[in-house]
Amino acid sequence: MEEIYVIGVGMTAFGRLLNKDLKTLTREAILSALSDAGLDKDDLQAAFFGNASQGHMEGQQMIRGQIALRAMGIERIPVFNVENACASGSSAFALAVAQLRAGQADVAVAVGAEKMCSTDKVRMFSVFDSAWDLSQVEENRRNLLRMGEGVEVPEGSCSTRPYSVFMDVYAAMARSHMRRWGTTQRQIAAVSAKNHAHSMHNPRSQYRKAYTVDEVLAAAPIVYPLTLPMCSPVSDGAAAAVLCTGAALERLNVDRRRAVCVRASVVQSGSDRSEEDYELHCTALAAKRAYEAAGLGPEDVSVAEVHDATAIGEIIQIENLGFCAFGEAGAVSERGETRVGGRIPVNPSGGLESKGHPVGATGIGQIFELVAQLRGEAGARQVDGARVALAENGGGLHGIEEAAAVITILSR
Amino acid sequence: MEEIYVIGVGMTAFGRLLNKDLKTLTREAILSALSDAGLDKDDLQAAFFGNASQGHMEGQQMIRGQIALRAMGIERIPVFNVENACASGSSAFALAVAQLRAGQADVAVAVGAEKMCSTDKVRMFSVFDSAWDLSQVEENRRNLLRMGEGVEVPEGSCSTRPYSVFMDVYAAMARSHMRRWGTTQRQIAAVSAKNHAHSMHNPRSQYRKAYTVDEVLAAAPIVYPLTLPMCSPVSDGAAAAVLCTGAALERLNVDRRRAVCVRASVVQSGSDRSEEDYELHCTALAAKRAYEAAGLGPEDVSVAEVHDATAIGEIIQIENLGFCAFGEAGAVSERGETRVGGRIPVNPSGGLESKGHPVGATGIGQIFELVAQLRGEAGARQVDGARVALAENGGGLHGIEEAAAVITILSR
Repeated sequence: MEEIYVIGVGMTAFGRLLNKDLKTLTREAILSALSDAGLDKDDLQAAFFGNASQGHMEGQQMIRGQIALRAMGIERIPVFNVENACASGSSAFALAVAQLRAGQADVAVAVGAEKMCSTDKVRMFSVFDSAWDLSQVEENRRNLLRMGEGVEVPEGSCSTRPYSVFMDVYAAMARSHMRRWGTTQRQIAAVSAKNHAHSMHNPRSQYRKAYTVDEVLAAAPIVYPLTLPMCSPVSDGAAAAVLCTGAALERLNVDRRRAVCVRASVVQSGSDRSEEDYELHCTALAAKRAYEAAGLGPEDVSVAEVHDATAIGEIIQIENLGFCAFGEAGAVSERGETRVGGRIPVNPSGGLESKGHPVGATGIGQIFELVAQLRGEAGARQVDGARVALAENGGGLHGIEEAAAVITILSR
Repeated sequence: MEEIYVIGVGMTAFGRLLNKDLKTLTREAILSALSDAGLDKDDLQAAFFGNASQGHMEGQQMIRGQIALRAMGIERIPVFNVENACASGSSAFALAVAQLRAGQADVAVAVGAEKMCSTDKVRMFSVFDSAWDLSQVEENRRNLLRMGEGVEVPEGSCSTRPYSVFMDVYAAMARSHMRRWGTTQRQIAAVSAKNHAHSMHNPRSQYRKAYTVDEVLAAAPIVYPLTLPMCSPVSDGAAAAVLCTGAALERLNVDRRRAVCVRASVVQSGSDRSEEDYELHCTALAAKRAYEAAGLGPEDVSVAEVHDATAIGEIIQIENLGFCAFGEAGAVSERGETRVGGRIPVNPSGGLESKGHPVGATGIGQIFELVAQLRGEAGARQVDGARVALAENGGGLHGIEEAAAVITILSR
């Protein structure tokens, strides 16, 4: 099997960037990734463009990638527009890996770009509705309520202002996890406090403000048990990764010591499983396949970026990834094992909660962070001696599981 | 390089199918392709879902493929949502080929599915607007007018009712071709009459009505020089292709004699070229790459399906594909060389003009036809001794070229 390398990464700051359009964000991310690789845009032979919301937000569908790339002078190459909700970026990355392995190009760019912030809050939050089956909205609601049953919801612990439907989903998942495993709201808050602390060292993070666990608990409620700092914000941003084959690595004038090897890139969709079959969660299955492909196990992972669209997401996913047993992630997080310096550092970038969550860009934003970590270029948030890194990116809901669970494993 | 095979194809009838939703169309196409291959849905290891308009028409974005596939019980496999305007289906096919070549699956399905017909005509036709850069609508209009200058437009030869913006685009391209090469409206009408005659033998065609050249010329005008039968209708429909590796072909219990080999699958995007650089049109460049990959030339092609969203499209593209010299396609068409039985039969299915054009399904609908032709299963529209088949599918506009030009070459 041909080895595939990430030879350059670029990322805009994530945030509320009302003055930058999708073309500008895309250009910034790609030029930065090319500069990091020491390549020119003419070196690119294929592009994979992940975006989830431009159709909803701007009415621009169909050929979003070609439009954004043409504006920066990238033409005459294959451009594939890839949509997989919040996993659009990592899905684009996976397709780039396959294209290179198939010998259909030897240098490609995977880019995720997203403009979600708007002064029209109703439009902004309603984009998330379409990451479910719109023809089954009532059935989705019933499943949600059922999933969250059996945990008392304190009065005043839910907001009445508009927010993403996914906050309802995650809150129900959180209550299910609390009921099943005894996970506490304080443990969930510990995840959030840890991620906000990490982002203090990330200049590209949307927020750079530290919270104590008590401050997280006392913050504005969204949906019980989630408070505002436990939830990812709505964000704009873009990230890009330049990939190449082993043959191209020989041919190109790039610094091989900074190249990072793609050990696995696995996409899986979910099912209508019972919520009790934890080991059959599609993220767990995707992780199993990724570990097999890489010839590695969870114990080999030095650092991970995990899809914490809310803090409970990180708890659920580090169990699915095998970083601890099912049901133990709350306690593991509270003990600080997932901090930089801990047993298995998770979301050194600040994660979606603090760094931000421009959905189509998120998956490649994770890869940006992990490449920096593997190169030892992550500054004050560096995980010492990082050799193997794992990204987990989830998108959409399919029944009550991710519609797309994407695992990427990278190594030095 | 691993050989890739198409082992099953399925296609719904194309047409105005107001009583069938996208899930139903997807299921019909995939079950038919699986049945054709002699496989079960559990044999599928990856899915590539091409759709262009569900976001605009129904507000369903993000995870369209997962939703349609889950409804028929296909879960727990990688699902990639691919959008490339009218070339979404063939782009999904190209990605499936790469996934198999990369060894990330050995059996995959590429499906294109589209629901475009609506009683809301404004919504229905406005979907095509987003296949251009919406931020450059005025610039697009100016380029269009310029392109079509210098040809007298007879009074009463343009409709006032709503129609797709692409009819304006194609009409301008037609006038440009008339001015440059002396192509006549009667030659364009000959393409249309030929394609409608072909569809008389296609039970899945949206229209099955023969027209003489004079009847095409006398039909309702859309935009000069195009009349109604020269323009593809708005359509619903789905098509699917099951692909596998050579290793899987050995492993599976499929009829090897009916397997068709994928000789090339090439995607290219356009540029802001001058309209006079004919040899640099992205379809011409994509065809050149595809012929090189297949080790074949245009003279080896037995039969082709070509993107005749309007009749002038077929004229332009058979020149780009090298079936005749630039400027000669009008005369070639008028002489009957592209009829079944002629020198190079084009669009034996009836083409987009008559078979219909459910945009995300169109590219795989072309492959459905070519697989039938290569197997000798095309009945009264069979091209005798077909051994090499070529599909050309274009999507969106990028400047004044296709945003995605996709060429697929298949052989027995």
